[in-house]
Amino acid sequence: MSVIKLEPLTGKAFEPYGDVIEIRDSAENYLINNGTTRRYNDLATAVAQGPDARVAISTCRAQPFDLPLDLKMVERHPDGSQAFIPMQPCRFVVVVAPDEDGTPGAPRAFLAAPGQGVNYFAGSWHGVLTVLDQVSDFAIVDRQGEGPNLEEHFYDQPYRIEP
Amino acid sequence: MSVIKLEPLTGKAFEPYGDVIEIRDSAENYLINNGTTRRYNDLATAVAQGPDARVAISTCRAQPFDLPLDLKMVERHPDGSQAFIPMQPCRFVVVVAPDEDGTPGAPRAFLAAPGQGVNYFAGSWHGVLTVLDQVSDFAIVDRQGEGPNLEEHFYDQPYRIEP
Repeated sequence: MSVIKLEPLTGKAFEPYGDVIEIRDSAENYLINNGTTRRYNDLATAVAQGPDARVAISTCRAQPFDLPLDLKMVERHPDGSQAFIPMQPCRFVVVVAPDEDGTPGAPRAFLAAPGQGVNYFAGSWHGVLTVLDQVSDFAIVDRQGEGPNLEEHFYDQPYRIEP
Repeated sequence: MSVIKLEPLTGKAFEPYGDVIEIRDSAENYLINNGTTRRYNDLATAVAQGPDARVAISTCRAQPFDLPLDLKMVERHPDGSQAFIPMQPCRFVVVVAPDEDGTPGAPRAFLAAPGQGVNYFAGSWHGVLTVLDQVSDFAIVDRQGEGPNLEEHFYDQPYRIEP
């Protein structure tokens, strides 16, 4: 089985697939609220395409996975971005894959560190939410609207994801 | 000085002002990701009005306040909603006020419990981010676009907010 090693999640490495949501000094940042809060501005754009589409906020509670894990499937949402924002510090695996003429190429796997979230661009192939260590809660920022907004792809052979 | 007592933050009590973002069994919820994750769907809508406006995701790091605190000012964003999603369990004070012909009436103060975030409706008068106990990080989902999108109101007399 092909083996994929986890890479550290950085804004630069993740750039082709989406945005990293975190406290990041390299982002535009400034004090607000009379100096009591520092804002790291505009890390990601939430997109919802289609006539009646809108951006909404949901939550979810995810059961943990163990490493190594076998990746069989990726999915994408052609009509909207999708952000996962951890509501407690946690580690999770972020699988993405480049698009190659409508199907996903070989995946990459990033390890999100405590304090990091992600926003997948509309149309980015990605794996399902894969948290490690313990049950974890996330906020989800994504599209609500008509249409399936979902494509799934099952790889002919699974990939093994290792630390 | 007028005293305001903190109220528990519930979706029902907060309904006139915005949405509570949390894991809430009374929300529409269902299993996703082959049963490993339960999604609590569509708790809040993110709104960004204006020709070039969009919904974006930012983060912030907030210094803690002590109770009691004196509330002098509230603000609102007429062209967009604004959500604060805690990235770790924390308590924060959520001040809101009804609109009375363009100015805020007497405020109410809610105590967000660990695991709760909020989304202020566009045009809802609210206080600034007021976290308790320790420095805390939040994701912010709000509008990016032209125009000030900000109105501030200073009360003639401050209100004292007490536990």
